[in-house]
Amino acid sequence: MPDAGSVAELGEFGLIRAVTENRRQPASTLLGPGDDAAIVATPDGRVVASTDVLVQGVHFRLDWSTPEQVGRKAVAVNLADIAAMGAVPTSVLVGLACPGDTPTNLITELADGMWAEAGRAGAGLVGGDMVRSDQLVISITALGDLRGREPVKRSGARPGDVVAVCGRLGWAAAGLAVLHRGFRSPIGAVNAQRCPEPQYAAGPAAAEAGATAMIDVSDGLLADLGHIAESSNVGIDVRTDLLEVPQRLVDVSTALGGDPLHWVLTGGEDHALAATFPSFADLPEGWRRIGAVTMPDSGLTVDGGPYRGEKGWEHWR
Amino acid sequence: MPDAGSVAELGEFGLIRAVTENRRQPASTLLGPGDDAAIVATPDGRVVASTDVLVQGVHFRLDWSTPEQVGRKAVAVNLADIAAMGAVPTSVLVGLACPGDTPTNLITELADGMWAEAGRAGAGLVGGDMVRSDQLVISITALGDLRGREPVKRSGARPGDVVAVCGRLGWAAAGLAVLHRGFRSPIGAVNAQRCPEPQYAAGPAAAEAGATAMIDVSDGLLADLGHIAESSNVGIDVRTDLLEVPQRLVDVSTALGGDPLHWVLTGGEDHALAATFPSFADLPEGWRRIGAVTMPDSGLTVDGGPYRGEKGWEHWR
Repeated sequence: MPDAGSVAELGEFGLIRAVTENRRQPASTLLGPGDDAAIVATPDGRVVASTDVLVQGVHFRLDWSTPEQVGRKAVAVNLADIAAMGAVPTSVLVGLACPGDTPTNLITELADGMWAEAGRAGAGLVGGDMVRSDQLVISITALGDLRGREPVKRSGARPGDVVAVCGRLGWAAAGLAVLHRGFRSPIGAVNAQRCPEPQYAAGPAAAEAGATAMIDVSDGLLADLGHIAESSNVGIDVRTDLLEVPQRLVDVSTALGGDPLHWVLTGGEDHALAATFPSFADLPEGWRRIGAVTMPDSGLTVDGGPYRGEKGWEHWR
Repeated sequence: MPDAGSVAELGEFGLIRAVTENRRQPASTLLGPGDDAAIVATPDGRVVASTDVLVQGVHFRLDWSTPEQVGRKAVAVNLADIAAMGAVPTSVLVGLACPGDTPTNLITELADGMWAEAGRAGAGLVGGDMVRSDQLVISITALGDLRGREPVKRSGARPGDVVAVCGRLGWAAAGLAVLHRGFRSPIGAVNAQRCPEPQYAAGPAAAEAGATAMIDVSDGLLADLGHIAESSNVGIDVRTDLLEVPQRLVDVSTALGGDPLHWVLTGGEDHALAATFPSFADLPEGWRRIGAVTMPDSGLTVDGGPYRGEKGWEHWR
């Protein structure tokens, strides 16, 4: 791509044109970018909405990821929240703050990634704002539609329910270990860190199958199951014999140190979905059982006992 | 308020609690903060959505404004976009990035301002995200409901229509001139810069009265009428004899220099609403006629001729 100069040279309106022109909107986009606000169809009569902010140097590094991967990730982590309510993603709004000397190409590649990931989920970029700042900050708001189903909240798990997950666990954590040591392979783990691949359709499928509680695994499996346990006032037991520890993660741990099971239990950023289902429910395709909901006083356990280690991470801590 | 330490000491979850607990949500908030996503009622079957980002040192200064005023402004500029579509604001999502040593009190006061302004518009804070960054960045997404009316876009103005505004013009620009010179009064102008007071109900009222095009005056009256002219493929003539130049602005210009009419024509950040109406329409309360829609080849004019001066501003330029 030819050098298109800096965002300051192109100006706000030129930049907005560069990232919105000739893009394809889904049918739910009734009015796209270019007016004071966008208009999105909400046939259900309710809209599901979630915001996540990603900061350069904190949530992504441009020496580790391409702008396209960062754009995909920024959209993916938000749309995963929509799917985790059992809703179907419809649209994305982008708040972008960056230095004036940011290359225009970086922003258009970021936008390419955002459009690609939104498209994968059936959503469109319907609006946004671009402003000047010292540090690249990406704030995404994702919207979705429940299609007549009740939302699957964190609070509905009941003792006796099955705990299940859909999507990868531990891969992004292994990729982070690789990148921190200065390596770029195995590429599967590294790319998992660069850009998660949430299974968006698995959220509505779980809702359809009667899921009683659901969450997007962003902070780590145990941390996020802990949120379900707390909101639902139940205990949850994870069984390690039901957890797949992929050979690739074992390979990384052999090479670099680190415990692959710890990555699976506590690694964030893979954005798998975790949910609880009635014991009689048929798990939808792609979902696998990993444990059970227990009585409140049991707390969060692994193989029936406390897990010795960090459960996940909070920002700032 | 007692010193509550820094956001890093309190942690993400404690901070979220501090800014969401014991707040009052409107009836449209079906599920507020605390789950993967919020759920908002959209009885119209469409949702209006807009995002704006404010950066410390670019869009606000904490030596000029209190955190509460910044919070109000961040929400106001977004909700004004919703009103400018003719929609009724329902909710606000907040993406906040700030340094770890930011005082918790600053964030809770910011949140107080956000809640106050959202409440003034009948909306609630339904969700958000708080992360670490080097610079305070506030990204707001506002949602609204059209209540069965068609949206008022920028593109519907027709030659012969009346041009009208509702809300203050030039006050924020005068306030900026005052603050830049190191003064803190007259307080009316200074507070206008610190926090706009959009007339949210004037947007839906204009839609009800048959407005053909509408925009939120954020970049300056002429710049934003220029957007309507371009989108609608019409000319617009503003008549200065119809524009009120408040005595307070004349006073500021006498004391500090600057042209009060220029502030009225080009000053941004007051977030008045500007709209076009059929010539036979009765203007709703608070709206005043300031000009007329002309033929496309006339362009944007002031008293029938070109305006000599900057029309407004683009970010980065």
